[in-house]
Amino acid sequence: MTISALVASIRPPDPRAALAAQQRLDALTKPPGSLGRLEELAVRLAMLSGRAPTVERPVIFTFAADHGVAVEGVSAYPQSVTTQMLENFVAGGAAINVLARQAGARLVVADFGVVGPVATAGGFHSRRRGSGTANMTAGPAMSRADAVAAIEDGAGLCEAVLGADEADLIGIGEMGIANTTAASALAAALTGTDPVRVTGSGTGIDAGAVARKVDVIRRALAVNRPDPHDPVDVLAKVGGFEIAGLVGVILAAAARRTPVALDGFISGAAALVAAHLAPDATHALFASHVSAEPGHRVILDALGLRPYLDLGMRLGEGTGAALFVHLARAAARVASEMATFKSAGVDGPRDGDGV
Amino acid sequence: MTISALVASIRPPDPRAALAAQQRLDALTKPPGSLGRLEELAVRLAMLSGRAPTVERPVIFTFAADHGVAVEGVSAYPQSVTTQMLENFVAGGAAINVLARQAGARLVVADFGVVGPVATAGGFHSRRRGSGTANMTAGPAMSRADAVAAIEDGAGLCEAVLGADEADLIGIGEMGIANTTAASALAAALTGTDPVRVTGSGTGIDAGAVARKVDVIRRALAVNRPDPHDPVDVLAKVGGFEIAGLVGVILAAAARRTPVALDGFISGAAALVAAHLAPDATHALFASHVSAEPGHRVILDALGLRPYLDLGMRLGEGTGAALFVHLARAAARVASEMATFKSAGVDGPRDGDGV
Repeated sequence: MTISALVASIRPPDPRAALAAQQRLDALTKPPGSLGRLEELAVRLAMLSGRAPTVERPVIFTFAADHGVAVEGVSAYPQSVTTQMLENFVAGGAAINVLARQAGARLVVADFGVVGPVATAGGFHSRRRGSGTANMTAGPAMSRADAVAAIEDGAGLCEAVLGADEADLIGIGEMGIANTTAASALAAALTGTDPVRVTGSGTGIDAGAVARKVDVIRRALAVNRPDPHDPVDVLAKVGGFEIAGLVGVILAAAARRTPVALDGFISGAAALVAAHLAPDATHALFASHVSAEPGHRVILDALGLRPYLDLGMRLGEGTGAALFVHLARAAARVASEMATFKSAGVDGPRDGDGV
Repeated sequence: MTISALVASIRPPDPRAALAAQQRLDALTKPPGSLGRLEELAVRLAMLSGRAPTVERPVIFTFAADHGVAVEGVSAYPQSVTTQMLENFVAGGAAINVLARQAGARLVVADFGVVGPVATAGGFHSRRRGSGTANMTAGPAMSRADAVAAIEDGAGLCEAVLGADEADLIGIGEMGIANTTAASALAAALTGTDPVRVTGSGTGIDAGAVARKVDVIRRALAVNRPDPHDPVDVLAKVGGFEIAGLVGVILAAAARRTPVALDGFISGAAALVAAHLAPDATHALFASHVSAEPGHRVILDALGLRPYLDLGMRLGEGTGAALFVHLARAAARVASEMATFKSAGVDGPRDGDGV
């Protein structure tokens, strides 16, 4: 499906479904509201899909790509790590493999353009748009045509999985050395925030290196002058292939009214692009956690999302989204499996003043 | 085992096990520290047990009892609800049943003294010390002998389960109409905090009723004058049977070096009593979440514990502990199942300045 067709098919959810879900929750054997944000989560899930929520068939998309801006020395790790980690995902040894297995989630790995070559045959999808993006301090990271194609590739992968697997929750994550630099540039451009406020230490660089990273982002924005009213322009000029792919996943899931668990800072940047393309897509978004990257909170505030977990994580790959699966499943199962006051023969609140 | 024998067998953990666990985590294919508090959790679990942590056989203890202070109108619900919810636990319809099933945790339910009678035959343990405690505004909630016996009953139940099931994580929770009043009184007495700072709306009373609840607690403390240097005295005078039972579970688990996931405010009050009896027991305690009750943060600060979840929950029963099982299991599995940089052939950090 084209981006414009996807965007046109994303509609706001039905508030009546939210009301019905809240009434159901209030009939269950617990004081009203006493499960806190699990109840809000159940209501949002029900409102999105228009039916009783389930989180029994989650799928996590982890997309990898390289970034030309890595040559500017913005990461603690060499670029070779992106391809090596893609192979690690296929072999099952990365954190996201462990956490997806635990969550009972299928993991869908795709190469959107690592520098490669990838030694592994099979076990992942190839949607390459090049051997990494170009260095965004010298010009656009990618062409507009490549940005559009990568979004549509991501959407296509998501549609294939949603159609075949009947997935009821989508998680997104990524791997790409230097992609916090791209995410910071996207956040700065799309929210109008000074780069220094949305730039952090990524995989673990020191304060001096963070300052140089901020300078790299300033130069990229000055050279490319991305148009904040044209999210595809911003994505092409200072984004990344894997980020574009995740934009497509979000749009396709939102069009199907399937909830999307965001991961950390980079998937948040993808969500920001998606929300600029289709504001109603935010109804499908769930902020699994807030990462240690300072720009992540700026993005979540811009999206109007409150994170469910705050564990100081900054790994990406979809690890936060995988942990969130347990919370979303708890919310859905509480709503569907608990007894009501009536069915269990439990008395309701006392009559009388003040209680 | 007697309380003094339990206390004597609780020893501080071995910091060398923590160092070994951190070294193992730093060898895994992720930037050091990038899994944030999951890593701290894995290290604490390893330090406590002295071996690679597992969270594959969790058990949640949910203890119920009634509170004589309920006649003072401190709860939004009638006292009948305690017994009815005990029956709901046995029937499998309560929130803790749903969340324990999801977490793969065995649920052990015990009656430490509900007003009853309980219609259900079987499915729970009976450790009754009476039909609810006495009204603590008129004298001690229970005798010192009953407090000691309830602690030892809780410890005995825990030891039986730990021995038979080889449980690797214990969660604790409770049910008892008016037991936030007891927990507030315990927190005030043991931390020297004014009752107004540790008293909240419990199951959902309004501001006027909270003010009356504070007054009830002040009267109970004035009438009983509990000795803050004698935790069993405080527990007997302003505590509850189910809280005493949970103190026993904590002591028995700590003695066996089995981690204990606290739940909310009331189980936090039990932990406070246990920590006053045996300060080294705090090494076995994990604050699953921080509840909406204002006194919970005061208790966690006094115990030096940082909660892992903050979802505005205030239900009790062990629901927060059940959600925490997923996080603890994630931490343990990451530590044991992830590939290392060496085994996966992934390059480490770049050499050079500033990274």
